[in-house]
Amino acid sequence: MRAITVPASGTALLLIDVINDLAFQGSQGLVAQAEAMAGRLAALKRRARAAGVPTIYINDNFGQWRSDFRQTVAHCTSRSSPGRRVSQRLRPTARDYFVLKPRHSGFYDTTLDTLLDTLRIRRVILTGIAGNICVLFTANDAYMRDLKLFAPADCIVSNTPAENDHALRQIATVLKGNVTASTRLTFRRRQGAAK
Amino acid sequence: MRAITVPASGTALLLIDVINDLAFQGSQGLVAQAEAMAGRLAALKRRARAAGVPTIYINDNFGQWRSDFRQTVAHCTSRSSPGRRVSQRLRPTARDYFVLKPRHSGFYDTTLDTLLDTLRIRRVILTGIAGNICVLFTANDAYMRDLKLFAPADCIVSNTPAENDHALRQIATVLKGNVTASTRLTFRRRQGAAK
Amino acid sequence: MRAITVPASGTALLLIDVINDLAFQGSQGLVAQAEAMAGRLAALKRRARAAGVPTIYINDNFGQWRSDFRQTVAHCTSRSSPGRRVSQRLRPTARDYFVLKPRHSGFYDTTLDTLLDTLRIRRVILTGIAGNICVLFTANDAYMRDLKLFAPADCIVSNTPAENDHALRQIATVLKGNVTASTRLTFRRRQGAAK
Amino acid sequence: MRAITVPASGTALLLIDVINDLAFQGSQGLVAQAEAMAGRLAALKRRARAAGVPTIYINDNFGQWRSDFRQTVAHCTSRSSPGRRVSQRLRPTARDYFVLKPRHSGFYDTTLDTLLDTLRIRRVILTGIAGNICVLFTANDAYMRDLKLFAPADCIVSNTPAENDHALRQIATVLKGNVTASTRLTFRRRQGAAK
Repeated sequence: MRAITVPASGTALLLIDVINDLAFQGSQGLVAQAEAMAGRLAALKRRARAAGVPTIYINDNFGQWRSDFRQTVAHCTSRSSPGRRVSQRLRPTARDYFVLKPRHSGFYDTTLDTLLDTLRIRRVILTGIAGNICVLFTANDAYMRDLKLFAPADCIVSNTPAENDHALRQIATVLKGNVTASTRLTFRRRQGAAK
Repeated sequence: MRAITVPASGTALLLIDVINDLAFQGSQGLVAQAEAMAGRLAALKRRARAAGVPTIYINDNFGQWRSDFRQTVAHCTSRSSPGRRVSQRLRPTARDYFVLKPRHSGFYDTTLDTLLDTLRIRRVILTGIAGNICVLFTANDAYMRDLKLFAPADCIVSNTPAENDHALRQIATVLKGNVTASTRLTFRRRQGAAK
Repeated sequence: MRAITVPASGTALLLIDVINDLAFQGSQGLVAQAEAMAGRLAALKRRARAAGVPTIYINDNFGQWRSDFRQTVAHCTSRSSPGRRVSQRLRPTARDYFVLKPRHSGFYDTTLDTLLDTLRIRRVILTGIAGNICVLFTANDAYMRDLKLFAPADCIVSNTPAENDHALRQIATVLKGNVTASTRLTFRRRQGAAK
Repeated sequence: MRAITVPASGTALLLIDVINDLAFQGSQGLVAQAEAMAGRLAALKRRARAAGVPTIYINDNFGQWRSDFRQTVAHCTSRSSPGRRVSQRLRPTARDYFVLKPRHSGFYDTTLDTLLDTLRIRRVILTGIAGNICVLFTANDAYMRDLKLFAPADCIVSNTPAENDHALRQIATVLKGNVTASTRLTFRRRQGAAK
């Protein structure tokens, strides 16, 4: 797979459901994959930041309609959370944006449309959990809005590698997304971006 | 105007843009009206709570896409905020729900639809600021979704009393809303509600 | 009121619920006003067409989910329809676009957003029936989408002149719309428009 | 696969993009599959009608924003249309509903939400073309709206059988849909349905 360069201007990095307690029956396999992914995704986020690409956390509220994202982060990074290492590694900072999603797609009944318009985003880099559910649903909706999709294959995980592969194939063929791995993706710096 | 009784079950109290710095040129008149309203609205909220009616804050993010509602509350209740007395009086508690809105209507690109469905709400009590803008826009959208509207006349304020009166008349005639004052509105207790 | 010139490029003329049987109790007053308006609106539509401005009919389906717009036109122009003269005068042609709306706002659960994007519209000229209901609801939603609004005062009618005046004032003040009469509105020709 | 019985009340049959000219490079394989499917789907539609289950055509407008569905049917059943046999076999009648969709999902910027609410639908039977694109996008959106999904495997076709199989597996596993073939699906008659 060839290396690609993505213009920083007009691009956003989306982290989908990475702040996650992964507390469900039989989550061990997914936890292991997600932990392996977290380091690569953290590195991609650092490079995005250096290039002036905004990061948007799109995260389930896990039915906790009264809590804010800070409480979700506290819950998911707590000792009892199987997802604590992933959530700690990818903990948001004050520079990041976040969008609460009540269903699977990041666009369904959320402010994401308005935020992307405000930031003048035309390209999204989709990452996170699970590739064949929330990432794919969000990808479909992004495609219908004429956004250009990137879905780095090494920053997306699903319950099984087979499900992940199929989701990536769907994104590549039907949604015309680029699935080049994050290690081969570099940003063309936005003018005047913080070093 | 006659007294009315609203069933607690299926009803939600909406507080629109009450957490507000009211920091705009010429806001003195609105600040004075909002301060007079805040006591009545706080009393209505207490009675709603006693009857088991959930309170939902629907609030502008004032362009601060990175902050959460807690930071908005801190900003609006700070010493330099003209809206500090209103915001303090109506400060949310851990029991309240909140929905961030990026535009005027509480339904536009927000999770409000999903939250109302989850809580099985069929009636909304609309209160807040400003009656002829965000309250009216939200009322229109609630009406199109077949929700029954209550808009207590003494819990809604606008820049001028004339604008407020007209908004209330629009809600009463076009949207078939009930504009009985909060002092004449009582709740029929939900079974098993906390005392 | 001063004359204004509107660039044809990026502008659309919206005709809201003008194909209408006006068959409700007490519609005589509205029918009379609408008939007086129909000639002015037909003239505006002709000038829009000459300048290359597309016309979009945004029309209620009157609960007839199985019929298409052609059948609605046939019904509203039939002998028994109180709105027949208005509907005949403003009958759509094969060049016009149309959007079926199930509720009051032209944007609610319709394809209007997508159509305006496809035509690259940034300005809308709102006309039709009734000024304080469907026209105003559509205006609110257009304003939240950052469209620039024109609402020619002589091409919008409501049940009563007082309701119409108030709706126009709301559009002018809250929505920052321009309510210059159609007779004072001219188009700056789109390059290459059909003569 | 076991036979299933679906209650007619609360159920709708959705025909997605079956009125289709199938006029694209390399469509021969899809045309052959769609023609084989059309007879089974026509039979399912007849049985739905007999049981009182409404049929809703959800159809692309093929970029023809000015035409109505009648013109789309005329175009797709014309002599030059590769999809003419499929479109003729499944030609809508005056009893059927139709929803124009501008993008892939039947729910995106359309009146489908409102129509399903009006008809009080809680279950949808998804059929049509193509299984891994418009049918799957619509299925995802139906699932997020808490509708129960049926996707009869013999009434859905895609460019390749492998793509179709995968879409059906996604519907069965992620969306918890029932993919029992139409030949094993019977309706429990709605009370008072026309014979």
